[in-house]
Amino acid sequence: MIILGIDPGFAIVGVGVIEYKGNKFRTIDYYAITTKAGLPLEERLKIIYDGVCEVIDKYKPDFMAIEELFFNNNAKTAIQVGQARGVILLASVNHNVEIFEYTPLQVKQSVAGYGRADKVQIQQMTKAILSLPEVPKPDDVADALAIAICHAHSHRMVKMGVHM
Amino acid sequence: MIILGIDPGFAIVGVGVIEYKGNKFRTIDYYAITTKAGLPLEERLKIIYDGVCEVIDKYKPDFMAIEELFFNNNAKTAIQVGQARGVILLASVNHNVEIFEYTPLQVKQSVAGYGRADKVQIQQMTKAILSLPEVPKPDDVADALAIAICHAHSHRMVKMGVHM
Repeated sequence: MIILGIDPGFAIVGVGVIEYKGNKFRTIDYYAITTKAGLPLEERLKIIYDGVCEVIDKYKPDFMAIEELFFNNNAKTAIQVGQARGVILLASVNHNVEIFEYTPLQVKQSVAGYGRADKVQIQQMTKAILSLPEVPKPDDVADALAIAICHAHSHRMVKMGVHM
Repeated sequence: MIILGIDPGFAIVGVGVIEYKGNKFRTIDYYAITTKAGLPLEERLKIIYDGVCEVIDKYKPDFMAIEELFFNNNAKTAIQVGQARGVILLASVNHNVEIFEYTPLQVKQSVAGYGRADKVQIQQMTKAILSLPEVPKPDDVADALAIAICHAHSHRMVKMGVHM
């Protein structure tokens, strides 16, 4: 199966595409969709939507895996990222790609094996699992790949009858 | 000019379409797009996006006027409404409809003449300005019409060289 991992954001959307087949991973593509601060809000949302449509059209993923959003205090940021996340989800449903959401804790547990792993550990594990030459930059791209790995692992667990 | 006023929301999106011509208002249509709580998030976003595309296709508005979002405390609500707002803005930009954003204060000043007007006063003024038989329900629909009126007034001010 081909999995599109997305780290949602407004200025930077992390994109990672992997294949998971017979317990083996293959990295297909990874990059960031970026939107410039000077552009009108709606233009930035269109760039994000079109960018996600493009990656779906190109690689025909079976699933989209995306991080659940949590914010403690900054409602302004929450609205901005929420708007971006809305158009990302829309791109997926408009292309009939099934969406799975994971919490940061689930991603950590799945990729590093324990929930208290820090960012660097997650990135190193992502690099190792996908046999990458180096940790992808920016962080959003590494995060997107980690979420895709999380979905591959969860899917295997579900198939094996183990519920995470 | 034809103005589409939108009160953004996740369960209920208020929609109001008015024409403003020669200082006169004509009410074209008003209703709510609703999404059921039991549906998956992405399906609800698709209903909102498709609903806004539909009203744009039907009435070909020159402008979309939408309320700016402010939240003080509830980040979860901010994300939800942000996601809905994202797909609404996307519908507009995908149809080349110019978007204008107004704060609640601007709407109050524009519709009732002063910024401390309460909800009931705004609704009564909206009803009077648009010669409606009664205050539209739910509140979201009345709010959408008020935002559309706000844009009509602002546009007139701008044309007259007065900046709000």
